[in-house]
Amino acid sequence: MRRKELLDYARQMDREDPLAAFRQEFAIEDPDLIYLDGNSLGRLPTRTSAKLRELVDVQWGDRLVRGWGEHWIGLPQRVGAKIAQLIGASEDEVLVCDSTSVNFYKLTMAALDAQAGRDQILTDSANFPSDIYLLQGCAKQLGRHLEIVEPGSVLDALGSRTALLTLSHTSFKSGYVHPMLKLTQAAAEVGAVTLWDLSHSVGAVPVDLGACRAELAVGCTYKYLHGGPGAPAFLYVRRDLQERLSNPIWGWFGQKEPFAFGLDYAPADGIRRFMAGTPPILSLAAVESGVDLILEAGMDAIRRKSVLQTQFLIDLWEAILETIGFTLNSPRDPDFRGSHVSFGHSDAFQIDQALIRDMNVVPDFRAPDSIRFGVAPLSTTFEEIVHAVGRTEEVVRTGIYRQYPTLRTGVT
Amino acid sequence: MRRKELLDYARQMDREDPLAAFRQEFAIEDPDLIYLDGNSLGRLPTRTSAKLRELVDVQWGDRLVRGWGEHWIGLPQRVGAKIAQLIGASEDEVLVCDSTSVNFYKLTMAALDAQAGRDQILTDSANFPSDIYLLQGCAKQLGRHLEIVEPGSVLDALGSRTALLTLSHTSFKSGYVHPMLKLTQAAAEVGAVTLWDLSHSVGAVPVDLGACRAELAVGCTYKYLHGGPGAPAFLYVRRDLQERLSNPIWGWFGQKEPFAFGLDYAPADGIRRFMAGTPPILSLAAVESGVDLILEAGMDAIRRKSVLQTQFLIDLWEAILETIGFTLNSPRDPDFRGSHVSFGHSDAFQIDQALIRDMNVVPDFRAPDSIRFGVAPLSTTFEEIVHAVGRTEEVVRTGIYRQYPTLRTGVT
Repeated sequence: MRRKELLDYARQMDREDPLAAFRQEFAIEDPDLIYLDGNSLGRLPTRTSAKLRELVDVQWGDRLVRGWGEHWIGLPQRVGAKIAQLIGASEDEVLVCDSTSVNFYKLTMAALDAQAGRDQILTDSANFPSDIYLLQGCAKQLGRHLEIVEPGSVLDALGSRTALLTLSHTSFKSGYVHPMLKLTQAAAEVGAVTLWDLSHSVGAVPVDLGACRAELAVGCTYKYLHGGPGAPAFLYVRRDLQERLSNPIWGWFGQKEPFAFGLDYAPADGIRRFMAGTPPILSLAAVESGVDLILEAGMDAIRRKSVLQTQFLIDLWEAILETIGFTLNSPRDPDFRGSHVSFGHSDAFQIDQALIRDMNVVPDFRAPDSIRFGVAPLSTTFEEIVHAVGRTEEVVRTGIYRQYPTLRTGVT
Repeated sequence: MRRKELLDYARQMDREDPLAAFRQEFAIEDPDLIYLDGNSLGRLPTRTSAKLRELVDVQWGDRLVRGWGEHWIGLPQRVGAKIAQLIGASEDEVLVCDSTSVNFYKLTMAALDAQAGRDQILTDSANFPSDIYLLQGCAKQLGRHLEIVEPGSVLDALGSRTALLTLSHTSFKSGYVHPMLKLTQAAAEVGAVTLWDLSHSVGAVPVDLGACRAELAVGCTYKYLHGGPGAPAFLYVRRDLQERLSNPIWGWFGQKEPFAFGLDYAPADGIRRFMAGTPPILSLAAVESGVDLILEAGMDAIRRKSVLQTQFLIDLWEAILETIGFTLNSPRDPDFRGSHVSFGHSDAFQIDQALIRDMNVVPDFRAPDSIRFGVAPLSTTFEEIVHAVGRTEEVVRTGIYRQYPTLRTGVT
């Protein structure tokens, strides 16, 4: 297709988009900005802005400590129950509290404690470095062995020594999506527990933990769920395991009767035992309206649009970006692709800088040499995608990116 | 003094109060409400409300992921450096991140790991139950022995087996303040590490961790620091210990180069290694303006007013509350008293309910039989204290509290 045809196609797709009206649900302060980093921090829902004003000025400012009984005490479970609908879980299997890292630590320690006779923790090199760091810490603390294999070798590495298999469902770099059902079943067959990190899937890629009989999961709420910077994360524990697993952090919000102020810890029945301390209410409340938007749109419609948009990015790569030195680092098969597309380029760091500073396009750079273009189906248009690729081409053809420092000098 | 004289005295004190102007810094939605639970959730500073609107609508809504570089990435250290000024710490010794419980867990595990040859964890029965639960969990996880002694027996229980002494500086129940210098020195003499919980002190009771050479501390920001519901907590690690202690939660915000995305964890130099995951920015940013108010008022002036107000509560107890069945559960000596006064009554649970629902007074009840009246010197007036005691007297003399369920039936 020629340029004109690509733009016409994009505009046609936007006109026919059944989710088009959802863009109005977000604060779009700068209509010229092309924001393709919703996989890092999702856009602000306008209803979140209104909700937070009410929370701060009325619930806190006027009701003060009474806000706990009136509004806040059940928030971790209430928002968790909504997220449960997005990941094939039951409402009593999900909580929102703490950061992804702290939740990942809690569930890893709980799983390893329950798998005392097995010494291997298994993950792959496509996992988040942040998860791998936590696993290294847990392995050291508990005297287990962490094995990091290539993504294609996970099945071969599973065995009777495997205590825990943990993977990022959608890879933060390539956007590759693991076959969750197959891997979870294979792990279960050898007696290993599986812990999925859904941070790059939830709200963009369908997940069915229940159908997979997955034991454990965590996930981030500030990416495709539009929860806001550093919003607390969710954790999932399969119902039948909740009373068999122990939270390593014996906090009062996980205590059976937190307001009895007794001196002996007894874990709450059910999912609440996986809480630790008092949750950050402002950040937690912001999560709810983003999740509501995803539920209103429906995961099927979101996934359909996401696949069309990432496919369009790949078509544009073939038409334009490949000719100016970009490689495609994401799967072509949509069944194995999340909601972002990663392109490689030897000058990716400088190009990313020029896109942000000179072209009003915000993708993100991932070391050493890739740029991620993420689509958030509720707010990204097809026309934005055409323009993003067009502006990228301009940056490369004009060479203006060369004014920015290279990675070696630019990052300390 | 007679009633009229008490009220005259209170009004005189308010007129002469050098901190009187600070009350205007808070949202006072209901001028008739007497709020004496700032030791549980502090009032909303009006500047926090404005700051959050800017954070949500501009920093998140408009700047999106660029907000991290422009505003957020340094917040844990920046707010920590301000809190450091309130507790006698250096600016590179304090961080704000995670909940008090998670921070307490991190520092307890770090201390025990560094004290491998000692099997005793020592605390007292006046400590927060929440801290005691965490200690029980850590003791089980690491095979140590938790010893809980009476507050007066701490010195006797310290010995060569003691790995960690941990106490709440100001007791959440009685308001008793431990002699920090004496206890920290005694612990150091036997080679024990001390971890102070400053939750009921910071912003109300002067603390000088540096002068005590205290090793570790944590504290809450949603009480006297006015940080908002569930606001993240701070942690303190003495400078010379930072590289010798290890955070059990190897999160990416504590990693040396979090954005290099390498696969091997290496802790950051300095205090940052005690972070875990991404901090909840909305809740964290709200902490800063509350701390600013405390710094502007100055801890000396705050403490002077706090002592006068708690003394006034004790005077009113002698004049009125003692005659209707209340006991005084807090120290008379101001050197050993925090910023709340606890009164015991066999019907305390019902009286507390009646105060909240019928009299527009919000103190708080603590099981089994006490009511805490907390003063937040920047927002509590002397006149409010007179009226709170007057309304309490009315509740008891009229017997209207008897319509509420007793503790046994009222709390499940």
